[in-house]
Amino acid sequence: MQPGTVSPEPDRQILRYVPFQSKVTQGFWQGLSDLKLETLRLSEDPLDILGYFAPSNYENLSPQFQIDDESFRPILPASDTPAEAARRAQHEVPGTLHNLNSIERFAAFDKQAAQRAVNQQIWQDIRSGAAEAHPQLLQRFLLFTFADLKQFKYHYWFAFPALQPPAPFTLAQPIASLVNAMGPAVAQQVAAACQSWRERAHLQPQSNGSPGERHSAWLLLLAQDGSHVTHHPLNSWQQVQQEAARQQARVLLACDDPSASERFPGWPLRNLLLLAAVRWGIQEVGVVCVRCLRGPVSAQRCLYVHAHMPSLPPGWCEPDGCPSSIGWEVGPVPGKLGPRVAELASSMDPHALAQSAVNLNLGLMRWRAAPALDLERLTATRCLLLGAGTLGCAVARTLLGWGVNSMTLVDSGRVAYSNPVRQSLFTFEDSRGGATPKAQAAADSLRCIYPHVEAEGRQLTVPMPGHPLTPAELSQAEADAAELDALVAACDVVFLLMDTREARWLPTLLAAAHGKLAINAALAFDSFLVMRHGPPPIDAGFMTSREGHPRSGRGHSAQPHRLGCYFCSDVVAPVDSTVDRPLDQMCTVARPGLAPIAGALAVEVMAAVVQHPAGIHAPALDTSGTRFGGSGGPEEECSVLGPVPHRVHGRLSGFTQHCLIGQAFSQCTACSACVVERYKQEGWGFLQHALQDPKWLEDLTGLTEVQQQAAAAAERMDLNRVGSLGSLAASDEGSEGWNAL
Amino acid sequence: MQPGTVSPEPDRQILRYVPFQSKVTQGFWQGLSDLKLETLRLSEDPLDILGYFAPSNYENLSPQFQIDDESFRPILPASDTPAEAARRAQHEVPGTLHNLNSIERFAAFDKQAAQRAVNQQIWQDIRSGAAEAHPQLLQRFLLFTFADLKQFKYHYWFAFPALQPPAPFTLAQPIASLVNAMGPAVAQQVAAACQSWRERAHLQPQSNGSPGERHSAWLLLLAQDGSHVTHHPLNSWQQVQQEAARQQARVLLACDDPSASERFPGWPLRNLLLLAAVRWGIQEVGVVCVRCLRGPVSAQRCLYVHAHMPSLPPGWCEPDGCPSSIGWEVGPVPGKLGPRVAELASSMDPHALAQSAVNLNLGLMRWRAAPALDLERLTATRCLLLGAGTLGCAVARTLLGWGVNSMTLVDSGRVAYSNPVRQSLFTFEDSRGGATPKAQAAADSLRCIYPHVEAEGRQLTVPMPGHPLTPAELSQAEADAAELDALVAACDVVFLLMDTREARWLPTLLAAAHGKLAINAALAFDSFLVMRHGPPPIDAGFMTSREGHPRSGRGHSAQPHRLGCYFCSDVVAPVDSTVDRPLDQMCTVARPGLAPIAGALAVEVMAAVVQHPAGIHAPALDTSGTRFGGSGGPEEECSVLGPVPHRVHGRLSGFTQHCLIGQAFSQCTACSACVVERYKQEGWGFLQHALQDPKWLEDLTGLTEVQQQAAAAAERMDLNRVGSLGSLAASDEGSEGWNAL
Repeated sequence: MQPGTVSPEPDRQILRYVPFQSKVTQGFWQGLSDLKLETLRLSEDPLDILGYFAPSNYENLSPQFQIDDESFRPILPASDTPAEAARRAQHEVPGTLHNLNSIERFAAFDKQAAQRAVNQQIWQDIRSGAAEAHPQLLQRFLLFTFADLKQFKYHYWFAFPALQPPAPFTLAQPIASLVNAMGPAVAQQVAAACQSWRERAHLQPQSNGSPGERHSAWLLLLAQDGSHVTHHPLNSWQQVQQEAARQQARVLLACDDPSASERFPGWPLRNLLLLAAVRWGIQEVGVVCVRCLRGPVSAQRCLYVHAHMPSLPPGWCEPDGCPSSIGWEVGPVPGKLGPRVAELASSMDPHALAQSAVNLNLGLMRWRAAPALDLERLTATRCLLLGAGTLGCAVARTLLGWGVNSMTLVDSGRVAYSNPVRQSLFTFEDSRGGATPKAQAAADSLRCIYPHVEAEGRQLTVPMPGHPLTPAELSQAEADAAELDALVAACDVVFLLMDTREARWLPTLLAAAHGKLAINAALAFDSFLVMRHGPPPIDAGFMTSREGHPRSGRGHSAQPHRLGCYFCSDVVAPVDSTVDRPLDQMCTVARPGLAPIAGALAVEVMAAVVQHPAGIHAPALDTSGTRFGGSGGPEEECSVLGPVPHRVHGRLSGFTQHCLIGQAFSQCTACSACVVERYKQEGWGFLQHALQDPKWLEDLTGLTEVQQQAAAAAERMDLNRVGSLGSLAASDEGSEGWNAL
Repeated sequence: MQPGTVSPEPDRQILRYVPFQSKVTQGFWQGLSDLKLETLRLSEDPLDILGYFAPSNYENLSPQFQIDDESFRPILPASDTPAEAARRAQHEVPGTLHNLNSIERFAAFDKQAAQRAVNQQIWQDIRSGAAEAHPQLLQRFLLFTFADLKQFKYHYWFAFPALQPPAPFTLAQPIASLVNAMGPAVAQQVAAACQSWRERAHLQPQSNGSPGERHSAWLLLLAQDGSHVTHHPLNSWQQVQQEAARQQARVLLACDDPSASERFPGWPLRNLLLLAAVRWGIQEVGVVCVRCLRGPVSAQRCLYVHAHMPSLPPGWCEPDGCPSSIGWEVGPVPGKLGPRVAELASSMDPHALAQSAVNLNLGLMRWRAAPALDLERLTATRCLLLGAGTLGCAVARTLLGWGVNSMTLVDSGRVAYSNPVRQSLFTFEDSRGGATPKAQAAADSLRCIYPHVEAEGRQLTVPMPGHPLTPAELSQAEADAAELDALVAACDVVFLLMDTREARWLPTLLAAAHGKLAINAALAFDSFLVMRHGPPPIDAGFMTSREGHPRSGRGHSAQPHRLGCYFCSDVVAPVDSTVDRPLDQMCTVARPGLAPIAGALAVEVMAAVVQHPAGIHAPALDTSGTRFGGSGGPEEECSVLGPVPHRVHGRLSGFTQHCLIGQAFSQCTACSACVVERYKQEGWGFLQHALQDPKWLEDLTGLTEVQQQAAAAAERMDLNRVGSLGSLAASDEGSEGWNAL
């Protein structure tokens, strides 16, 4: 026997207690998952949480200790008011949560140290008097967890520390029901006082409208023999004691008791008895263990415990200066201490599980790699994908990976037999009979992959310059152009993923007219181009910067220095390139690895732009580190995802990749101010002219003049072999024949 | 009326003919597709083909001219012997095929020029006597086509040129059946002679076993009044003529007649009559139009045509020196000349269509971009994919795009809810209930995409060094290691796509032991590594070079200078990296664009190696152009797909990509000679030791010594802060924490 411990007095029966059984709601685990993902990330710092218990209200129900989604109230900002009615019946007590990062750290958790820390807190609160003012401090608890968010599997272990006196509390007389112990009349009065205590607290909302302080589970009763019983808070011991002496009344302790047993009280009695022994120095005390029956306090069910305190010799809790405690919960094996596991996967709705799993993976990126990532901004970006071929499918899949929730896919074709092996949203079944339109099949496929995505398919032909149209086709083209205009207006980002150069003209113009970000991807046999178009020539304030970010004085004015679009390097208007194409150009032949690479890069460029504070105005960096655009300092160069390129050129032969910068061309047939202005003013009238006669576009933009000057210069330089003006095109697309699939 | 033309003699009825109807079998179109894909590519040069016709054999059947898969016999190397029995009844005639590259070129095809060329040939053959020796030359035909291989749509137009005499042939007496014209007895004798002619040719196989020359459709008959009728070839006109004069017999022409009409003979008569007029100068001739009835020649069905020739004034076919012709086939609109279209998509088996469409797309790469591409070598490469997560799915899809037909996917996991949005072979349904093993789901998905692929899934855990094993787990690990060894032995390329470093150790060793190409892909948050492992340390002649390529004296000897493997840059053995991993490392977090890029690059690196003549020994080039390995000149640096890198490092932040070279490390724990030798000698005994005790591996390879030297050096240099030996690892994986998904 160690110094300071005392053996129990041998004649008396030892007082025993029914331990808590923890009950953790699914809401708590969901809350913990969100908290870990959004806030805690890799932190293992202990957290303040809340737990709940109530007096026993039904027979044969084991004493429960509950934690739920409200348990995070001390951590989370004010959330919706909880279901108050149910809660009022429960007592809220403080706890400490240690959430650990791995199963190994869970297994190796230093339980003793954590337990000692809680012991100290309780002991401190008892000795300082804090526990009399706030008796819930007596029931502090401890919880440590490992949340395996991938498997929806939660490992946990509770402790409800009960500080140990030097010897057990004993019974001065056997435990009996309140009625048996005091007789029916007094028992009824005692029960009525307890009920009144409970109701009083309920009926006093505070002046600010919030519910009043809850009644405590621990209280004092002043019982005048044969007459009145009154209730008093725990911290009025001295007054009540004096009053009792004056009135020759008895002071009883009362304690809401979660135990339903007729023989044993519940756990909360333990620290209360210690407090009485330590703070008030009493040797014996009568305690009413308050229990209810379907609502009101039941004199029949309440127990009366007449406890005898052990003597507390000086220095009894040395060497720690604090008593030790017991209270770790038993595990799944009855009677054996150990952690428990909650597996939620099977009980949750699969759709909800999928959504939560996907959000988990996205959120994980913020833990270590990119804490500043504005995921919500990315996932809320509405994307319009023009083309649902190899590039369209690759882009859609990468967008899905980023959690982008709204996609509209546009394609005029149907799934062909050769498509599924390269176009990652289609299967053989889609190509049978050639019946399924690509846009629809792609949207359906996206929903099969992730039911929560909002994907829509539109079967639509993008009107193209230089493709002659019959009068019937002309009215269809007008309708198509109007639909496309509406689609561009309704999105945030337009992806240009078509298989001809000229199909990109109208979308480029529409993106410029509506001030939307355009991302372009195009393939040749073993090389690709991925680029973002520059900001529109006339900044009308569309989607140009993050809310609240100063746009450094840009107004509704032409911008002479800006990044170019896909057509800015051309000196001819786009014309029909499909006429007389041999088969290999019709279904553009590319190394199979190109489309997934270009599609993924297109999305990553988009992500970098969207994450940049300047959005579409983000400055560009090329491979050599040269910067274009932006008015601020070097900190403006990067988004949280790194620098934002303008044009990424890659080649599989040699596995090279470079970032280049191309300035906007004031005579561009697609994005120059005069083209955009004319479209805004004249709409279809302008388009019709441009579509039917691309040469007219060249006159309009001044390209014709540029061509003539170039031709004259060539003649002067005796470079007559340059014959065709087309060969003056400076663009690498022009010379390499970029095509998208 | 032009000079040289002559009006018909007014009293006589003009002889009219039933034109051919072309019949093109699906086999012909399939053959043309293959030919274009494999041989012609972009060539539009005219091709010699064959066509077939037969005497009418049934009433009411229009005269057919057939082309089929045998029509390519003049072009293709000796193929299987065709169905001779059916063919013997048909006459084979030569034709010219112009296959054009686009629908526009088809529409603009210069029909007159092509027709004039055939006219010239026929005219030449008539005048030279060649057509008498080889009468099939009289029935030359012309065909021009555009094969839209993507849509299985074939545009075509036939001409059966009939050279025009200065005036039409006329009838000296009305056309009648042979019986009516000659009486039953003579008619029977004539029919019998024709039947004999047909049979004679059939019964004379040549001495070399090949079928004898087919009987001609055109012949001479010598008919002695009331008695004997004999058959003679066309080029015996002079002798038959003399014999007829001597015997006072009649010479008749005979001609197998595809027409079933009782009033009109078929097309083949036309050029025969012209030949008779031009070569023999006769003015009248009796022609037997030979027809059959369900097999034998039928006297009842044969027509007798008594033709009157127009006079042929000198220079009648000037100015061209050749008569003009008629004979373009009518199109789908009755009576109107025009091209026809065969659309085969709906009539073909969808699985066959898919296969043919996929092969088309692959074959197209050889047309212009990479004519030397050895597609078959690539598609026959058997690939083992270790890991069916984001990288595994991306690799499998790109392999499918390259036409790789055999894939085995290995994974121990099941599809989780978070997988489908990033792992491109899975859908939400696969993750429901978490029931589907990934390897199986991935293989099933590949077959859904392309039913012809041979994809297999194996649920298997790769044994990993430093993951402690219980005795039960040990026997499972032994079985797993044996299965993995067998899988590596049975494949050509191993892809390492797992999510831990140590899972790559055993496959790296197995690839080195079996001399297989290993391709490795690993991801960090926004960067990736894709590399091929170098050749094995002991070259036992496995899969090291293309058949027949000299391996420059390498034998069964250790190779000191070779490219490294994934572990060659380490100075510690791989250990369990999953112990105590927080959640974000458990499901490695990467920007969603990384896996499709790294997966696609892994396959493209593999393709470049497989296409390189030196295979696994291909020299490597880095970004700066520095070369490592290979004994030959600069021509050895490239495969047809470009230079072959060793390590490709890419980063999404900044969008950079570089090729680096790393030499093999003689103390490597995975690919050094001593490790590979020990595994080959001891098998599981060695593995068990290495798996249970990675430190032992370090002793074995001499790494321990290297570490001690490094530690000593560090101490001497007073770099005590380098404390942990792990931090000496030079690999970027080590410092950046590469993980695969």
